[in-house]
Parts: sequence; C-alpha cells; structure tokens
Amino acid sequence: MATIKCLFACLLLAAACAPALAAHAPHSKPEVQVGIVLFEGVQIIDFAGPYEVFGNAGFGVTTVSHDGKPVTTAMGLKVTPDAAFDAAPAFDVLLVPGGDVEDAERDPEVLAFVRKHAQTSRRVLSVCTGSFILAGAGLLDGLKATTFTPRIDQFAKRYPKVDVIKDVRWADNGRIVTSAGLSSGLDAALHVVDSLRGTGQARTVAMRLEYDWKPEGGFVRSRMADRYWPKALEAAVEWPQDMAIRTDISLGDEREWRTVYIITSATPAAELLQRIAKGMQGMPGWSRQPGTYRWTSEQDGRQVGLSFDTTPEAEAKTYRLELRVDTKDA
Amino acid sequence: MATIKCLFACLLLAAACAPALAAHAPHSKPEVQVGIVLFEGVQIIDFAGPYEVFGNAGFGVTTVSHDGKPVTTAMGLKVTPDAAFDAAPAFDVLLVPGGDVEDAERDPEVLAFVRKHAQTSRRVLSVCTGSFILAGAGLLDGLKATTFTPRIDQFAKRYPKVDVIKDVRWADNGRIVTSAGLSSGLDAALHVVDSLRGTGQARTVAMRLEYDWKPEGGFVRSRMADRYWPKALEAAVEWPQDMAIRTDISLGDEREWRTVYIITSATPAAELLQRIAKGMQGMPGWSRQPGTYRWTSEQDGRQVGLSFDTTPEAEAKTYRLELRVDTKDA
Repeated sequence: MATIKCLFACLLLAAACAPALAAHAPHSKPEVQVGIVLFEGVQIIDFAGPYEVFGNAGFGVTTVSHDGKPVTTAMGLKVTPDAAFDAAPAFDVLLVPGGDVEDAERDPEVLAFVRKHAQTSRRVLSVCTGSFILAGAGLLDGLKATTFTPRIDQFAKRYPKVDVIKDVRWADNGRIVTSAGLSSGLDAALHVVDSLRGTGQARTVAMRLEYDWKPEGGFVRSRMADRYWPKALEAAVEWPQDMAIRTDISLGDEREWRTVYIITSATPAAELLQRIAKGMQGMPGWSRQPGTYRWTSEQDGRQVGLSFDTTPEAEAKTYRLELRVDTKDA
Repeated sequence: MATIKCLFACLLLAAACAPALAAHAPHSKPEVQVGIVLFEGVQIIDFAGPYEVFGNAGFGVTTVSHDGKPVTTAMGLKVTPDAAFDAAPAFDVLLVPGGDVEDAERDPEVLAFVRKHAQTSRRVLSVCTGSFILAGAGLLDGLKATTFTPRIDQFAKRYPKVDVIKDVRWADNGRIVTSAGLSSGLDAALHVVDSLRGTGQARTVAMRLEYDWKPEGGFVRSRMADRYWPKALEAAVEWPQDMAIRTDISLGDEREWRTVYIITSATPAAELLQRIAKGMQGMPGWSRQPGTYRWTSEQDGRQVGLSFDTTPEAEAKTYRLELRVDTKDA
C-alpha cells in the first residue's frame, strides 16, 4: 500500500526521480533501448543532456566505447562506458555526441560501429559535432543535416555530399536526426521521444526536467547576426606573431553582434587595425566607409555593417579589439 | 602563426571547443576553481549541465566524492571523481547537485565537507534536490531557497527554518544559490557566471552552448497549474492493493494541467472514481459539482476546477484515469 501510494505520488507530480520510477515501474525492461557512443574528448552535455531525456522517458540507456575502458570527456570528466563495441546489444536509438571528433570521425572502428548500428536502429541522433562522425560514416550523404554553428562551414566543405542547413536547431530526415551545438541535444532528444512516443510524452518528459522545450524548434544559434562575419578574413590578416588573445564578450541577437577581444602584443592597436583593413581588401562585396574601420555590404536583402575598434587597457601592450556586426532591412 | 590563427578563429566564432581553448588560452591556470560534489545516485544533468557551463566560462572544474571511487548516477552512468574529499583543494564555487539525496543529506561526511567548503567558497550552488543537502548541512537556515518542484512541500516540511520559495527558477542569497529541478541548473550556473564575471560573459557562455538563457529567470515549473493539485488527496484515497499505475501524459501550462494514468487493477474504474470522491470529501475548500467527478475551489484569487474521468482500454482491468486542473480569474 505504501509503495503504491509513493508511486502514485511520484507519478502524480511527474516527479519521476528516475530510480524510484525504475524500481516501481510495471515494465521492468524498457521498451526502447538507447546506445550512446563515447570516445576520448566527447563533450559532456552532448551525451549527458540526451541521457537525462531518454532516461526520464523510461528508455534504457547503455554507454559504449571502442574498448569499454574509461573515457575522458572534452572538459576532463571521467566516465566508464557500460560496454565495449563488440559487446553492445542492438539499440532502438543510437546517439552520437560531439566534442573533439577529429579522431573519432576517421576512426574505422567508430565508423564501422556507427554504420552497423545505424542499420538496425529506429532512430540515429547526432548532437553538435557528432554529425561529423555520421558524415564520416557516409550516413548523411544526400540528407539534410546541421551541426555546431561555428563548424557549419567546415562541415559543408569536408562533406560536400551532405545537404548542410544552417537555420534549424535540429534536422530530421525521418530516421536520422542531427542537432546543432551542445544544448541543442536536449531539444533534439525530446524530438526523438516525440517521434517515437508522441508530443504529449515528450512534453511530459520536458516538464519532469523543468525544461522549456519548444517542439517546433526553439533557439537557433546559427541565425544570429555573426553569420554575416566574413570568415575568410581570419586567414587573410597578417596577425602579429606574439599576439595573445582572449574573448571578453561575444554576444548579440539576430540583428546585431558584438565581440570584444583582449589582445596583448607588441604590435600597437593602430597597426593591428591597419592589418585588418588590408585583410578586408580581399573580402568580396565589402565597401569601406572612407576614413573609418567600417565596411558595409548587402547580404540576404539586408544592409550589413562591420566595424572594428580598439580601446587601450591599463596594461602596456594590451588593448581591447571590438568587432561589431549590425544589420538592417535594405 | 597557425596556432594563433586557429585560436583567433575559434574565439571569433565563440567556438570554444573547450579543449582547444584550454590548450591555447593565455591563462594556463583558471582563475575560478569549481568543485562538484558527487555521490551514489546523483542526477546526471544536475552536475553535467553546470560542468559544461563552468568549463565553457574558462573555470577549472574538479569532481569530488567521499572516497574518490567511481560513482553510479541516478540513471546508471558511471563517473570517476577527480579526488576524494580529503584531497580536495579549496574552491571558488561549490556545486551540490541533486538526485537520490536521501542518504547524502544525512551523511556526516558529505555534510561536513559541504559545510567546510561553503565557508571558503565565493559561491555555493545547489541544483534540484541538492538543496536538501545544503539544508541538511544547516546552510540554508533563514535563507530563501527552492528545489525540484515535486519535492518543494516535503522540503519546506523537513527544513522549517528555510524560507522555501516556489515561483523562481533559482533563488540567490548573494553567496548561496539554490536552483529548481534538473535543467534549471544550467540557468543557475549561468547566473553564477553572471555574478562572478558579468552578464555579458554569462550570455557569451550561453551562446557557446547555443542555449537560450534568460538572465531574468525563465521557465518556472512550479508556476504550472498542477500547483493547485490537493496533494493530501494521495494519502486520503484508499487505493486498490493490486493497482499498477503508469503516467501516460502529464503536462499543461500556468492555467491548465492534465495528467493521464494507465491503471491496471481488478477494481473497476467506477469504483476507483468513488474512492477518489471519498478522499476528496476530506480536502478543505473543495466543493463537489453534484452528479459529477468535478470539484471547484477558490485559490490565489482564481477559480480552480479539478476533474477526474476514466476511459476503458482494450485490455480487461486496464483503464485510463484522467485528472484535469483548470483555472480562471475569479
């Protein structure tokens, strides 16, 4: 009686402290089994967010890696997988997180495992740069896919057979889903629950997680105004050899973006601006506003402005370099 | 040169694949050190979400536990802490996640560790039911605090010296911050970055995580309409001994809430409704609408309705029990 009451109370409140749920739930074996691929340098939230979502949906979750030995995530957390690749059971959902994927996307064992399990899984979900692994396995050829915003261009260049899209939080091809960066994995995992169990169930899980899920998509990082940033500029500027740089602030919205760096270099601020200006000469479509470090261009039917400015800091050889992107309807 | 360009590109795009950042960053030792307390049954997202936030803020993160031995999280993930309690360094931020805290909130070693480090940390942050541990350590006496929505009432009852508040995503007492459930930890961790580094930095980190952070608070689970649910009813109903129950759907918004259970029991649906009605007789303030399983009351200046209904399922002895809460301005 006490057990039933406790269970009822838990469920009633959508509490679902997961272990209590697992202990009392009438279905002892979860109907949906999820496999999560782990590798050295995996990003924590990329697998931990979806793990939490799938666990709260009542799915069984198994972490797997090449040899089943402990894995160190991209930020140092040490995780021990449940199984090695060759001991992994069949999965209904295969999750491929991102992080430092440079090795994983070329690792024949990882690619073979992903290819094999993608054939039998009902859903395959990549999070963040995990899409590089799916693409490396040839699973995204001819499909719409997305990835971590700062690596979208590189993704499109490296995997030209993939139809890379920029303006979504996740891209669903029916069976294969790719999400944008990091926290997007939470939303994409809820979308997978939605596709397997219905929107009501997915929203129920989101409520348990106290998460403001937007079934229709939600926040899309790649729509922000820094999409107009001429990325080729970075390679076109002759940066000082001794330059140390750190980001102070980088934020904005869909219309404006502002990034402030703290630069330390023997090269004075004025000269750095001149070097940037020289680099901007090679950027097609940008016109300089005479006597300023401001350029304008027309893109997507919008007037886009790009400005550079520096401010001295108290320390010698240190200054703030500010970049601004502003847009308005043309 | 290549390194500087890569770094610049990474930072420019707010990419900050964290390991790249760590490898190139001019400050080799992070200025802010975070300690995360782990224990058996810790909830994954409670520590993994803030870990991701703090790591992307450039903070150093160290996980600690009682004996430093591997810990199994509430949903099965196995994590190896960086250090045992007695080998832990001093921290600037102490993070106390939730999960299965029934043991941890009474464990003298955990409480002593949390008490000791709370004295020297600049910020102490609990996530979800982690607030039970802070309260168990006596750190929340006289302070405003919140927790996982379904456990708020229990929290207030167990720790009467705590000023428990329900309608926030996190409660900040200047040095001690408690967050609501699970995903709220992401927001509260960003709030801690905000308090130590400014809103611009916190928003920059949120952008890196592609997360739609609301500095002013955001989604508050405990404001949803199921707050009007008479929780004492669960103990007041004589539930069938053989009843198996699982939640099908439990969702809504601030005005309405709907929960559907799948009940399996030899007790027919009609009799279960009668038992619930008998239980409702003991609930103060609720008036029955004659001839129905609907009750109404006035709460917080709103008219609140509570309805029960059942629908037969295909299987014998199985039926859906639906609970609805609806509210309107009185």
